[in-house]
Amino acid sequence: MEAAEEDNKQVIFKGFIVGIPKETDMEVKVGKIELKAPKGSGAILVKNLYLSCDPYMRGRMREFYGSYIPPFVPGQALEGFGVSKVIDSDNPNFKPGDFISGFTGWEEYSLIRKTEQLRKIQQDDIPLSFHVGLLGMPGFTAYAGFFEVCSPKKGEYVFVSAASGAVGQLVGQLAKLHGCYVVGSAGTSQKVDLLKNKLGFDEAFNYKEEPNLDAAMKRYFPEGIDIYFDNVGGDMLDAALLNMRIHGRIAVCGMVSQQSLDNPQGIHNLFCLITKRIRMEGFLQSDYLDIFPRFLEQVVSYYKQGKIIYIEDMNEGLESAPSAFVGLFSGKNVGKQIIRVADE
Amino acid sequence: MEAAEEDNKQVIFKGFIVGIPKETDMEVKVGKIELKAPKGSGAILVKNLYLSCDPYMRGRMREFYGSYIPPFVPGQALEGFGVSKVIDSDNPNFKPGDFISGFTGWEEYSLIRKTEQLRKIQQDDIPLSFHVGLLGMPGFTAYAGFFEVCSPKKGEYVFVSAASGAVGQLVGQLAKLHGCYVVGSAGTSQKVDLLKNKLGFDEAFNYKEEPNLDAAMKRYFPEGIDIYFDNVGGDMLDAALLNMRIHGRIAVCGMVSQQSLDNPQGIHNLFCLITKRIRMEGFLQSDYLDIFPRFLEQVVSYYKQGKIIYIEDMNEGLESAPSAFVGLFSGKNVGKQIIRVADE
Repeated sequence: MEAAEEDNKQVIFKGFIVGIPKETDMEVKVGKIELKAPKGSGAILVKNLYLSCDPYMRGRMREFYGSYIPPFVPGQALEGFGVSKVIDSDNPNFKPGDFISGFTGWEEYSLIRKTEQLRKIQQDDIPLSFHVGLLGMPGFTAYAGFFEVCSPKKGEYVFVSAASGAVGQLVGQLAKLHGCYVVGSAGTSQKVDLLKNKLGFDEAFNYKEEPNLDAAMKRYFPEGIDIYFDNVGGDMLDAALLNMRIHGRIAVCGMVSQQSLDNPQGIHNLFCLITKRIRMEGFLQSDYLDIFPRFLEQVVSYYKQGKIIYIEDMNEGLESAPSAFVGLFSGKNVGKQIIRVADE
Repeated sequence: MEAAEEDNKQVIFKGFIVGIPKETDMEVKVGKIELKAPKGSGAILVKNLYLSCDPYMRGRMREFYGSYIPPFVPGQALEGFGVSKVIDSDNPNFKPGDFISGFTGWEEYSLIRKTEQLRKIQQDDIPLSFHVGLLGMPGFTAYAGFFEVCSPKKGEYVFVSAASGAVGQLVGQLAKLHGCYVVGSAGTSQKVDLLKNKLGFDEAFNYKEEPNLDAAMKRYFPEGIDIYFDNVGGDMLDAALLNMRIHGRIAVCGMVSQQSLDNPQGIHNLFCLITKRIRMEGFLQSDYLDIFPRFLEQVVSYYKQGKIIYIEDMNEGLESAPSAFVGLFSGKNVGKQIIRVADE
């Protein structure tokens, strides 16, 4: 007997794009899916609960196959990190009722065939959605980038751009816990307020209100910057280069300001790398997975002790997914942007 | 009784400049000097034999005091690395007849008060002039940059720009001795010929004959570049970024193409730092002086075994100094540019 097919709402990727993503680059449609993991497939069938909106996904919207991750397939649902519940399993490592995090589709139900990188969630009093934020890729990006790339020392001056975002907010809090002086930049006064009054940054500023970023940095870092955790690239990176201290470190993480540009902006102040002997390093969290257990243990412990918090921007329903994703590129989101697809 | 004053030909720095240095920014004049180290000064009086022309000196021609080295003083002789012979000494560490290398003036005779960083030369069968080249700052820049910044591994693909220059020629030879595949770029066919037929590079190309540097790199590095030793910055750096391999390293050394620009050219491909997890690091040899003895021992040994050679471009007389220095910025020099001031 064949299992009945269920409706499956999906966010379809319409085709490759140029420039900043628009809502019309995606389409919400209802397809059909059989809620079974086929015998012999080794796959699992999951119900998606939370989906993560991340700027790197813009990179998958161009037809370029030379990157660390292939492009999206036009006509199919987008993919991204999510938290899901197993409905059916043909895989001995997963059973119905398990909660997992990892790559899934932007849709109500997904059949996941590549199960190697999925993580089973040990449920406790931590919100499930945190597994795509604080305890997921963005949180681990912050942790690996700060501790493994920035080589921080107590008392150092740390600057974080896009500081209230999914990655930045944790970088700043980890830097404070490490004994650093931390300043963040963001694009609204509401975010600046969050940074100073909820996330514990020493200082924060709204870059949109600074006619001269170099002057702003000199104001907040009269002694210069030891560590710049760069989530944006562009003008902010150029201004930071001028204000780095000798033997400073720049972790190049997001470049969200440049994600959508087919002709990325030029960076003019790289001569500072020499005069100030700066190390500038790009990284991906996936290169550091061997320290993931340590990250999880430490950040969960900080969270349970109330030493760190994590701000989420939760959109409701798959219908809201295109606008939530597009909003990342204008800084509409306040904190980690998530789509709640379904209740547990 | 006062000592008689002697004529002292000098290359005077006329004043701060904008743009590419011109011969008229300097003036050769005859001053007077007493060939004595004043009692109680701790100084030494030297006769200068060889002076080194180095691109970094352009940086000292602008009125900017925030760099690692102060600007030249208008109206006074230029300064730079040199090989000199001690004539008179008020310092117990030096005696007349000693040969030294270190900072001296662009003039026939210099009174050196800061003697801490001078190095006494143990004379053997190595040409004295090598102490401002192969065994001096440029050679040590190559050694420290390649081994300490580039983290080379046997079999890796290495690209060197300005490859026949004072630094590049040694980087390439060290890389070959380390078991790497090495390609160099230079600006004339004569230099390309040197790289391939005298300096032992696997391949070399004339960047001025390449309408598309990206295409040139893809031709010479179909598998990509593991290590880029960057002596020039600018377009070459942008093209190299596109052709780096995952976990590649870029040692940022000279940026000679940008030295004279008050508005340095923009670098557009820094997003590659993220996708390919590249480490890009500026450095100065002076941060690595603890390994100078190892460098000296190893490079002297290689030289004596005939495993490395070093090409010098020797100009005769202080009168030729302005044109020799200016020539660096159009690539006129073939090999390390030196001015012979006097015979031993």
